[in-house]
Amino acid sequence: MKRYRNGEIWDFEHEMPVSRDGSDVILGLDGGTTSTVCICMPIIPFSHNLPDPLPVLARAVAGCSNHNSVGETAARETLEQVMADALSKSGSNRSAVRAVCLAVSGVNHPTDQQRILNWLRDIFPRHIRLYVQNDAVAALASGTMGKLHGCVLIAGTGTIAYGFTEDGREARAAGAGPILGDWGSGYGIAAQALTAVVRAYDGRGSHTTLTSSILQTLGLSSPDELIGWTYSDPSWARIAALVPVVVSCAEAGDQVANQILLDSVQELASSVKAVVQRLGLCGEEGKDSFPLVMVGGVLEANKRWDIGKEVINCISKDYPGALPIRPKVEPAVGAALLAWNFFMRESHKEGYKS
Amino acid sequence: MKRYRNGEIWDFEHEMPVSRDGSDVILGLDGGTTSTVCICMPIIPFSHNLPDPLPVLARAVAGCSNHNSVGETAARETLEQVMADALSKSGSNRSAVRAVCLAVSGVNHPTDQQRILNWLRDIFPRHIRLYVQNDAVAALASGTMGKLHGCVLIAGTGTIAYGFTEDGREARAAGAGPILGDWGSGYGIAAQALTAVVRAYDGRGSHTTLTSSILQTLGLSSPDELIGWTYSDPSWARIAALVPVVVSCAEAGDQVANQILLDSVQELASSVKAVVQRLGLCGEEGKDSFPLVMVGGVLEANKRWDIGKEVINCISKDYPGALPIRPKVEPAVGAALLAWNFFMRESHKEGYKS
Repeated sequence: MKRYRNGEIWDFEHEMPVSRDGSDVILGLDGGTTSTVCICMPIIPFSHNLPDPLPVLARAVAGCSNHNSVGETAARETLEQVMADALSKSGSNRSAVRAVCLAVSGVNHPTDQQRILNWLRDIFPRHIRLYVQNDAVAALASGTMGKLHGCVLIAGTGTIAYGFTEDGREARAAGAGPILGDWGSGYGIAAQALTAVVRAYDGRGSHTTLTSSILQTLGLSSPDELIGWTYSDPSWARIAALVPVVVSCAEAGDQVANQILLDSVQELASSVKAVVQRLGLCGEEGKDSFPLVMVGGVLEANKRWDIGKEVINCISKDYPGALPIRPKVEPAVGAALLAWNFFMRESHKEGYKS
Repeated sequence: MKRYRNGEIWDFEHEMPVSRDGSDVILGLDGGTTSTVCICMPIIPFSHNLPDPLPVLARAVAGCSNHNSVGETAARETLEQVMADALSKSGSNRSAVRAVCLAVSGVNHPTDQQRILNWLRDIFPRHIRLYVQNDAVAALASGTMGKLHGCVLIAGTGTIAYGFTEDGREARAAGAGPILGDWGSGYGIAAQALTAVVRAYDGRGSHTTLTSSILQTLGLSSPDELIGWTYSDPSWARIAALVPVVVSCAEAGDQVANQILLDSVQELASSVKAVVQRLGLCGEEGKDSFPLVMVGGVLEANKRWDIGKEVINCISKDYPGALPIRPKVEPAVGAALLAWNFFMRESHKEGYKS
């Protein structure tokens, strides 16, 4: 170990004998704004078919690790603690770790990546392979079982599209937050619904059943109370939680709600199309197939008004080779598979023996 | 005096003899998110023509008094201090005050109004007439010289339209902040410009000269640095400060910037039209004349791309009776004239003698 940044977190390494002596492990982390998940898996032999189910040794959960939300010190401590928990649960310790893939929201710029790599270096011995990615990359890997190829669309509170070519080029679209135009996100849908209520009330917009549905959901008696409600708490997730109300109104035939969802579909599809176009994922003829991984609450609704289905339809019109995938494993497993893939590729070159 | 809430603020009343014995005064306050202005004027004899220039006794300035921004305690103290300053400067004191009109941003609901009235009651003797309004009402009065008739459009960092009929009915549109659809505001224009830069960068939108202009203005080297810049400081005014960059790009022929301004014109005009429509300010035939007071930085640009002029053109197509007015006095003077008008009307009924 290079040095102990936080003695208590790693105390278990002295107290507990390593039961799986010599067995190498990898760690995959998915760090979001709501929670952080760490998966510990053994190094599995290189093959074309992954074992099913995957041999997960341990899973640990902690709170928010987005440095933009909680600050860098708290984010570091959360990530360090969740890795220690996962290793402790799996009866392993840092000396058994071969690779770590940390996929965390708020990685938007190479400087974000470098800052996180620097302090990971403080925790682990120098020879351990470390990979830092935007959390969208783990979501893609959760659909492709670790292969970085294709495009992922995430639409939860926020939205982002992220893609890779097989030769390693990457591109993203959206993921810049609500001020900078993530209009198809859960937050975007709900904010437009709230806006529609205000506009109907003051005479700028059409009557909509969103008014009674939203006021009832929030326990308010008049649209002018929405101003106080909206600005009393700046949390995006609190506003995004109104998406099911918008979907219900659209399903019941409300034209305003319906138009908001139609616009959202166009926005989400346009993010994917921008990534596919820039990377040429569709090939020169525009018909090559590529994985399209769909993740997040907005795309998972399986009701009559199915936003995810409409997004796929819209993309398929331009790119018939898009192969929609709904991941069967969580993004943290995707991160672990990524760590495994990166590690195997590099070890292969260097002649690694397990 | 009912009771002294804050001894120090009103100490001058004991130390300084009242020089204008027996001369009644009124106070007008314009409380915004950036600053608060208080005007002290004498009670002027009732006539159809106001004296020109108006006999302003004193003007005092303080900081933000929006209770949503700084909290109620700080807002109260700021308002009390600025009133004491204005009275002290005019050589007057609270016993000479006959009426106060407090026009303050953040008054969106009758409960806001009642809360502010309650603590004004603590400061002044019971017989003093107190009026609490949204700050847009003072802006209207600054254009109509105290008469509550017509519609005001404010477009600065935020935007609101507010109107009154001659028989006292009132209506507003917009003024609900950026999450709730104040899209024509300075903040709205600038946020759309930032969004256009991100969308051009990630392939969702057309190339625009906004990219180089905005990055240069902010001292950034790449559009992906805009995410960090935008969310590092939630102040709306900081984003709205980019409006002149958008106007310059549109004047130089950039289509994206041009479209943002055209959309903004439609949004601002639609707020006014909604108010005019609801109040029937245009009469049954749609051709009655009514004052249209235009206030705020977005409407004051007097360049080739003149947003204010385009908004007026757009409104005049539907309502040819709209009479545009650019106020010659500040909103706090409008508030003082309102206090005077309210007071004279009520005193007239009661047979007041100055």
